[in-house]
Amino acid sequence: MSKKIRAGIIGGSVNNGWAKGTHIPAIEHLNEVELTAVGTSNMESAKKSAEAFQAAHAFDKAEDLAQHPDVDMVVVSVNVQEHYRAVKAILPAEKPIYCEWPLGSNTTEALEMQDWVESRQLNNAIGLQARQAPAVNYVKDLVADGYVGKVLSANLKISIDGMGGVGDKASAYLYDRKTGGNLFTIVGGHNLDAFTYMLGEFKELSAVTAQQFPEVELVDIQKVMEKTTDDQILITGKLDNDAVANVHIQGGVKHQTGLTIEIFGDKGTIVLDAPATIQFGSHQLRGAGPDDSELQELLIPDHYYRVPDSLKNDAGFVLNVAQAHRTFAKDIHEGTSQAPGFAEAVKLHQLLDAVEKAAQTGERQYL
Amino acid sequence: MSKKIRAGIIGGSVNNGWAKGTHIPAIEHLNEVELTAVGTSNMESAKKSAEAFQAAHAFDKAEDLAQHPDVDMVVVSVNVQEHYRAVKAILPAEKPIYCEWPLGSNTTEALEMQDWVESRQLNNAIGLQARQAPAVNYVKDLVADGYVGKVLSANLKISIDGMGGVGDKASAYLYDRKTGGNLFTIVGGHNLDAFTYMLGEFKELSAVTAQQFPEVELVDIQKVMEKTTDDQILITGKLDNDAVANVHIQGGVKHQTGLTIEIFGDKGTIVLDAPATIQFGSHQLRGAGPDDSELQELLIPDHYYRVPDSLKNDAGFVLNVAQAHRTFAKDIHEGTSQAPGFAEAVKLHQLLDAVEKAAQTGERQYL
Repeated sequence: MSKKIRAGIIGGSVNNGWAKGTHIPAIEHLNEVELTAVGTSNMESAKKSAEAFQAAHAFDKAEDLAQHPDVDMVVVSVNVQEHYRAVKAILPAEKPIYCEWPLGSNTTEALEMQDWVESRQLNNAIGLQARQAPAVNYVKDLVADGYVGKVLSANLKISIDGMGGVGDKASAYLYDRKTGGNLFTIVGGHNLDAFTYMLGEFKELSAVTAQQFPEVELVDIQKVMEKTTDDQILITGKLDNDAVANVHIQGGVKHQTGLTIEIFGDKGTIVLDAPATIQFGSHQLRGAGPDDSELQELLIPDHYYRVPDSLKNDAGFVLNVAQAHRTFAKDIHEGTSQAPGFAEAVKLHQLLDAVEKAAQTGERQYL
Repeated sequence: MSKKIRAGIIGGSVNNGWAKGTHIPAIEHLNEVELTAVGTSNMESAKKSAEAFQAAHAFDKAEDLAQHPDVDMVVVSVNVQEHYRAVKAILPAEKPIYCEWPLGSNTTEALEMQDWVESRQLNNAIGLQARQAPAVNYVKDLVADGYVGKVLSANLKISIDGMGGVGDKASAYLYDRKTGGNLFTIVGGHNLDAFTYMLGEFKELSAVTAQQFPEVELVDIQKVMEKTTDDQILITGKLDNDAVANVHIQGGVKHQTGLTIEIFGDKGTIVLDAPATIQFGSHQLRGAGPDDSELQELLIPDHYYRVPDSLKNDAGFVLNVAQAHRTFAKDIHEGTSQAPGFAEAVKLHQLLDAVEKAAQTGERQYL
């Protein structure tokens, strides 16, 4: 077996729900990666977190974490506003970087970040872990193998109760368009990425966006702030395979929340349901192929699960991130690029830009 | 009670599935309308049909039917291509006209037909009978009464197995764009009409259309013909109430067919499901208002059923047409315009035109 990859996580605080809930348990389950360092914004919390997660080292500066000889790979799991600065800080260490999605607060930042890692030939991964989900890969393969025949149309509907008119202090940045982290970029980004990963890229699109909630109430601090982010995003267009595509992303919805992806072909149909945004897992698959008269549950073949048995019952929240780390570890060892990287992130940023431009101008965008 | 309205049906043949399945049984159930005349394209079938339906008179010319003193009101229930000519023929009789949807093969015809009836001040009705459906009116009232609060978004999805790549000789006209009768105008028209009736008009829209099936196989005559009609129509836009709207109309789909309308508000949600296009009925309503934690079945109050008890168990196919005839009979007696008429039909033709223009140009249309 290859040498274990020693990971340092920037934003690996016990107070950071995301890393604590995903990267850290994912790495714990894997043989090929181990956690050696935690970086947070102050040394006290860093030490507490390193101790809690049994990491050898604690840092309050990203550059110090990256430079440490016991760190082989750096995960950037901080607020999206800090991605650019964090990646810039760790760059001189010239180590592989796994950065959470969105890559930058905007496409300009993301393009620069892509240039940084590519000019240095650093292994890089973007946290679009829905691409690692067993159900997503199974659907991708079914579509490619002709299970539904020619794809006529595909619908993606994701509705969540959050990111509407009610939030809290910790999530306030999600309602400020400038930060780059919001319903459209995060929920929309992950789901659109999985959608196009399974079905192919958009070649043209139109869009409608709206802010049905012009304000958000931060309930824990009893404050109302202006909301500059969209809570309704509708996209229609055509994919490279000539299927028409219909996307509805909405926040602040009280009922009927969750995800539904329907793929209609001239010979069959696939439906993927989930209770929440696609990267969180809990996918339910139904399908009917050329010989089926009606939809039935599709069981995902075992080989789509590339994790230790200890993770196989995870609904996807940790499993998808574990599969991402496993893929990235292999990339690092073998010099491959199987994990989606900053280039894919830039492409997704550009897709989101095209959606925004279509919504603003009312003109179909050709990609 | 007012005098019974004596109806003549052009296209009231025993061989015409539509009139035989809707207008004729609907009129049989009503006290205020009776069938007195049947017109078809030849006297033999007209006589046979009149006898079968116990109508006193048979005609092979629309103008003769309309002029007969025993006919008070004329129903035009022929192929859409014949609507313009049929309405023109019966016009000199200056009697109320109930014409099936689509009114004309195109908006130019429809505008002329509107002018004909309005300049003569003839009572007129258009066969958009989903507006008569109890569920549709109940939803319209619930939305108006604030059951869901402010409407954030509304989705309309109608998928049918027909009108794709397989048809038969009798339905061949549905695949020829010139006739004006196709998936978009018929299925799209009825469903969009009910959607905007419940929720308000579109003020802007974008659209995507596609012909995923470029040919249609007419199975009974083993012939393949070119198909010039769209089988995929996607519309996104905003309604007058600022809700965003998302419409997907598709034909030639093997599974997951039927209708779903979802109305998302900031205080509640309504879902209308049906196994087929909206004017056929069999509507299932679920909803959650401001005080409900989850969706539950919504029972339609009895007063939305304005038909004799003998029709109350009808799923809507006949009931909606019966309610239309009852409404139109009242209009005729009282000089009102409660039934949707040619003006509403023209408005719908114009909405469809805007969708086509948006799809062709890629530019958002403002209505």
